[in-house]
Amino acid sequence: MMNPMTPELLAWLTSIVGAGNLSTAQADLDLHARDQSHHPAHPGDVVIWAQTGQQVADILRLANEQRIPVTPWGVGTSLEGNCIPLFGGILLSFERMTKIVEVHADDFQVTVQPGIGHRDLNAELARYGLFFPPDPGANATIGGMLANNASGIRTVKYGASKDNVLKMQVALADGRLISVGSRSIKQSSGYDLLHLFVGSEGTLGIITEATLKLMPIPAHMSAVVAAFPSVEAAVETVVAVRGSGLDPAALEFIDATHAVMLSETDGVDLAAYPTLFMEFHAAHEATLDYGIEMVREICDDLGAISVRATTDTAERKRLWHARHHSYEIMVRQHRDKHFFIMDVAVPISAYPELIGYVEQIKKERGITAYMIGHAGDGNIHVEFPYVGEDEYAQAMQADHDIVLRALELGGTATGEHGVGIGKARYMTTEHGAALDVMRSIKQALDPNNILNPGKIFPALEPAMA
Amino acid sequence: MMNPMTPELLAWLTSIVGAGNLSTAQADLDLHARDQSHHPAHPGDVVIWAQTGQQVADILRLANEQRIPVTPWGVGTSLEGNCIPLFGGILLSFERMTKIVEVHADDFQVTVQPGIGHRDLNAELARYGLFFPPDPGANATIGGMLANNASGIRTVKYGASKDNVLKMQVALADGRLISVGSRSIKQSSGYDLLHLFVGSEGTLGIITEATLKLMPIPAHMSAVVAAFPSVEAAVETVVAVRGSGLDPAALEFIDATHAVMLSETDGVDLAAYPTLFMEFHAAHEATLDYGIEMVREICDDLGAISVRATTDTAERKRLWHARHHSYEIMVRQHRDKHFFIMDVAVPISAYPELIGYVEQIKKERGITAYMIGHAGDGNIHVEFPYVGEDEYAQAMQADHDIVLRALELGGTATGEHGVGIGKARYMTTEHGAALDVMRSIKQALDPNNILNPGKIFPALEPAMA
Repeated sequence: MMNPMTPELLAWLTSIVGAGNLSTAQADLDLHARDQSHHPAHPGDVVIWAQTGQQVADILRLANEQRIPVTPWGVGTSLEGNCIPLFGGILLSFERMTKIVEVHADDFQVTVQPGIGHRDLNAELARYGLFFPPDPGANATIGGMLANNASGIRTVKYGASKDNVLKMQVALADGRLISVGSRSIKQSSGYDLLHLFVGSEGTLGIITEATLKLMPIPAHMSAVVAAFPSVEAAVETVVAVRGSGLDPAALEFIDATHAVMLSETDGVDLAAYPTLFMEFHAAHEATLDYGIEMVREICDDLGAISVRATTDTAERKRLWHARHHSYEIMVRQHRDKHFFIMDVAVPISAYPELIGYVEQIKKERGITAYMIGHAGDGNIHVEFPYVGEDEYAQAMQADHDIVLRALELGGTATGEHGVGIGKARYMTTEHGAALDVMRSIKQALDPNNILNPGKIFPALEPAMA
Repeated sequence: MMNPMTPELLAWLTSIVGAGNLSTAQADLDLHARDQSHHPAHPGDVVIWAQTGQQVADILRLANEQRIPVTPWGVGTSLEGNCIPLFGGILLSFERMTKIVEVHADDFQVTVQPGIGHRDLNAELARYGLFFPPDPGANATIGGMLANNASGIRTVKYGASKDNVLKMQVALADGRLISVGSRSIKQSSGYDLLHLFVGSEGTLGIITEATLKLMPIPAHMSAVVAAFPSVEAAVETVVAVRGSGLDPAALEFIDATHAVMLSETDGVDLAAYPTLFMEFHAAHEATLDYGIEMVREICDDLGAISVRATTDTAERKRLWHARHHSYEIMVRQHRDKHFFIMDVAVPISAYPELIGYVEQIKKERGITAYMIGHAGDGNIHVEFPYVGEDEYAQAMQADHDIVLRALELGGTATGEHGVGIGKARYMTTEHGAALDVMRSIKQALDPNNILNPGKIFPALEPAMA
């Protein structure tokens, strides 16, 4: 499938990064062989820790000449096998490129190396009263978040990773190092290459530096948790809250099964109903009080069974505890199981139908599964605990059926986890002839398919030399 | 330069759109030969009014086979010659594709044909309590706004056109009709082709349908107008207001010269100081009152000479009158002149330096010019009244110098008017090696360069058959 790694090649690579930044030790290969998904591990032939953008470019030039696959690695928190070196070759780690290059405080921007974790970045930015809003849960790296267009809880107000980046340095397969985007907030100058590379999962180029948009840390926050008699009523509330102009910072959904499980396991006070978790941010506390009044009114009008709301910080954290810790609570409840987390998104109006379909599958097939989602964005995750081949196969089949249903409903095979390995087989159905355009662009920028081969495109394997 | 239009070709084209939707009359050619910019008129050989996306695709397939340039046309309000058929051929007008295809009210989305004007669209959407936020001033078409990534006054809160579109149907040069993006708000599925076509000025494909993101019409608005002793103080205020978390819906700047001119001509009450116009939107009126208090405090702290604020609708409109009518007021003041409006953007921190540079040029060269800009985005327009060749040349030279200064300051040659004809010569300086990547993509998607030739790329002319 690929050219083998030779002592000569290793010597060349060592001359680029130095002996201390390269390893072929099995332990290092194994540590970079799988992400947090169910996809099987596959090791690279060498792990390289790059330290500069120019090194990355030099590595790519060599790899391209020698037809060696290169798979970029942030910290391995992806959920679709996005960073698994499926065809071996070079595992290019950014664990040693974690610097904040420059804080542009007056511009609400920061320039960083791609290996920094978003939590570590936000810890540093707090002193400026600023933060980078996208939060996918794990302490993913900025490079990984941009490459996969990660998002998370606060996307409904602040957008996904793609909405919070202005400029990047990108190394191309042939060793060119280019700059895309601008530190100017507005730019209508030529093709939007920035967003072409964002979300391309390292298959078109590798991000070596990024300038991010920051937001002021909100001075005041409120929380509202409301239970509803039906998914339909919950979704009507989502639509009404968004339509009110209240601009929620989070609008999260859990299904009744999940609410019960959270209550039983963690003693949190949730009833067995579809439940919405909301958060609002404001510059002035009084704004939140008025907002809460409006939200209460909307929830009551739409038949909410209970509505709890607060502007108090401790109480807010208590109310959100179940949502923020839902994954670990679920794991505690099923200590003998693995977990498969699937990700799809649909237009919000199709949310009740999609959730109804998942309920139907669970019932008909006797599957245990929990639903948790970013309802404000129409994004849902179905979490399957499984052990053994039968339960795994059952989860995989349910996943497949739910993806197809989401696509039928005008949605997407992946809202925020990316395509990676797992979703490649849906790309033809989702994109039709547009997938050929993606192929043309891939061919134009990486004709030898050395960049993260085996991802995004169904059955596109690296070229032989 | 191109193949000539022949009776045979015209017959083929007529068979696609019908005789009533095609004209070679000089009057029709002349009506579609120039936009609102200073760029010289150039007619196409035939004007075609398409009525469906499939017709557009069929026209492109034929034009591609015959090597005939195709230039798309919305309503001709562009400001950099973006829609001038520089090499003749087919002028493809969207004046007969103005339908609202579907309102997805619960999803805050609308699907439209590209020829509808954004004002006409918003008039229809008002009944749903929704609106499409980008507003470039003129009643530009949605297709033209997307093709040029137009923005305008409210971008600081709501984003540019690129931030307010979810899905498009696009006709490619070879006659394929593809769908890009998704009605799902979140999508991390393959390459972001949506944003590749947005802002590509019809050089990669032609937008034949678009699904737009809508926002709830704000229930309450306030206005603040404040004058400052210096540009620096005004910009510090911009930074502080953005940092406060107040989320302004508009943050506009005019320079002292413009303030004086507006006062003298229209009797508006503005002093000879750099002035900021701000607008805030809220779901609840009380929020605005608190907001105004905070803004007043910020302005006073930063040395404002005067601060006027209101939540009253009539008073708000009165305060904003000068800003909203600045162009026509300026035209009234200089009845014997033409106007050249230039567009650049920089990181906000570089705004004072850029404006200082324009002041210096004006003073040293004795040029009359007015500055008006979207300060919240670092975007500035310099407006030059001119008559005769000397003044025109002087304006062109100033334009050139200001663009280069903006690029030196880390900015862009165009914040919102697009590249068109006028900015093509800066693309190498602005993008460096990334321009070659743009060329590769152009080559992959439009190898014969039939799509809007002569735009974006310096000296890229259509291929001969």
